[in-house]
Amino acid sequence: MLPRITLLATGGTIASQQTDQGLMPLTTAKGILDFMPSLQELADLTTSDVFMLDSSNIQPEEWQLLARAVQHAAKNADGIVITHGTDTMAYTASALSFMLQGINIPVVFTGSQLPLMHPHSDAPGNLREAFAMALSGRAGVYIAFQHKVIHGTRAVKMRTLGFDAFDSINLPPVGTFDADGLHLRDEPPPLAAAEIGANPLAIDARVFLLKMMPGTNPEIFDHILRAGYRGMVLEAFGLGGLHYIRRNLIDKLRKISEAGVITLVTTQCLYEKADFNIYEVGKGFQTPGIYGASDMTTEAAVTKLMWALGDLPKRQKLLTQCLVYEMCDR
Amino acid sequence: MLPRITLLATGGTIASQQTDQGLMPLTTAKGILDFMPSLQELADLTTSDVFMLDSSNIQPEEWQLLARAVQHAAKNADGIVITHGTDTMAYTASALSFMLQGINIPVVFTGSQLPLMHPHSDAPGNLREAFAMALSGRAGVYIAFQHKVIHGTRAVKMRTLGFDAFDSINLPPVGTFDADGLHLRDEPPPLAAAEIGANPLAIDARVFLLKMMPGTNPEIFDHILRAGYRGMVLEAFGLGGLHYIRRNLIDKLRKISEAGVITLVTTQCLYEKADFNIYEVGKGFQTPGIYGASDMTTEAAVTKLMWALGDLPKRQKLLTQCLVYEMCDR
Repeated sequence: MLPRITLLATGGTIASQQTDQGLMPLTTAKGILDFMPSLQELADLTTSDVFMLDSSNIQPEEWQLLARAVQHAAKNADGIVITHGTDTMAYTASALSFMLQGINIPVVFTGSQLPLMHPHSDAPGNLREAFAMALSGRAGVYIAFQHKVIHGTRAVKMRTLGFDAFDSINLPPVGTFDADGLHLRDEPPPLAAAEIGANPLAIDARVFLLKMMPGTNPEIFDHILRAGYRGMVLEAFGLGGLHYIRRNLIDKLRKISEAGVITLVTTQCLYEKADFNIYEVGKGFQTPGIYGASDMTTEAAVTKLMWALGDLPKRQKLLTQCLVYEMCDR
Repeated sequence: MLPRITLLATGGTIASQQTDQGLMPLTTAKGILDFMPSLQELADLTTSDVFMLDSSNIQPEEWQLLARAVQHAAKNADGIVITHGTDTMAYTASALSFMLQGINIPVVFTGSQLPLMHPHSDAPGNLREAFAMALSGRAGVYIAFQHKVIHGTRAVKMRTLGFDAFDSINLPPVGTFDADGLHLRDEPPPLAAAEIGANPLAIDARVFLLKMMPGTNPEIFDHILRAGYRGMVLEAFGLGGLHYIRRNLIDKLRKISEAGVITLVTTQCLYEKADFNIYEVGKGFQTPGIYGASDMTTEAAVTKLMWALGDLPKRQKLLTQCLVYEMCDR
């Protein structure tokens, strides 16, 4: 009996066709499979169109729709492939990693830099590799793209045009493809999901992503508080620095934290960890409600914080724990 | 007669010493040279302490102080070396590239990941390479770090701890070091500085840096307008996508642009260019006052926009021109 794979389509470049308004996602899940007869020999296939969007339009509400579609499909599948635009794929894959932690089959995102129908498209290769990963039996949420399989919480879109669009940040890819097929890296299982609340899919999108620049006006912190945000991801400098002369960001950060806004401090550096215990400019952060994001990507920090805010009493303590390979253990 | 090199010190890790409050910059320019007697044989040396700050505290006001110090020192020097913290070095070097365009000697930033006095410090090697570049006669503003020389407008701090802290983004390094010394790449001269206004150092720091995430609340655009920002750098998705369903960022962007806020649209992808003419989600940007940043780094986009706002009547048209290697010509 063939293994059962469900293809969930969500739009994206892979599904795009040229229109007067530019490229628009129009190809359905069935249209994708019709174009790829070789996949039909590998598995007993089911398809579903969850939505049909350019991934720039995919937001937390779509993450929940998609997570529910995965939960539903998982009842009758040995693996799931999700086609998705590349622009926000790393955010969606990371969000679903937190929402679906403990899932017992592979859930594999893929997409392409050129539409499936384009003669030079990278879509056929990416689809084949995503199916191979979905058939691998390795449970979890992944992105398969251009010969790499990356944990959903570790992917970053690095290139706007290059086919090698995603890198695995601060952790090697979990899988690689060569002429001999898929090679999966051994790794310890994820932390057993602790108490995460009654609804694993509950998230709260009231998060502000603030990337620092020299001269950032501290007034933005007042605004974040006034506008009712419940969390902030702060992309600080280097290991976690902020300026405090003339424009005192550290005092303001402390103030909004005391008022209950939960902050995850990441670094603007792509690689390696934030650690604000080393320099004097970071020492002001020792306030309840301010957490170091260690070596999490910004995509992982944003989605983990939204997920934590979905049930803060249960999940706040998980901000400093590695749940689904998103951060190094400290 | 030995060539004349001026060392301008500004603080940073390279100058840091351990204190009860964490690492703090304390070593002066003279203290740096006293530690590096080999440099004294290479050049006729002058030193000056411009300020003594962790670079997380260096802001547009310090850029102006430093630019003036460079202008002053350049009258009696064949090359200038600036020691600076790594956290915001890429911003400062980029800002000075715009402010000092047309300078006729090398101005070379360097620093280190470990203090000069630390037994494993990378500072001695970086200083030697910065001095070699300052002695090269190649005019312009650069960062010399860990065997690479990078244009001031092309550097990004990539690593929080690794010695190879900076990469040259979307342009090869202009120079590399090996056992045979410094190798400089041939390249076309920068565009002759056009009319840039009476005060080349004039900048306006009223810029907001907005990095998108899925679910970014459009209210932030209202706030940017209300709070009196004059410019915005927008880190969009992929080639330049923003969401417009449910949370319509494109309408809001158009609105603030019509109200006079100048926007540079960059991509969150580290590599390759933004180009919002390809996808339907980017087509809404065709509004006066919204400019594509092409393949500029965020550091270059922020500093170029602040500089353009310093004399907008003269400089607005320069936003789409390559001035100091900051963007590919289109």
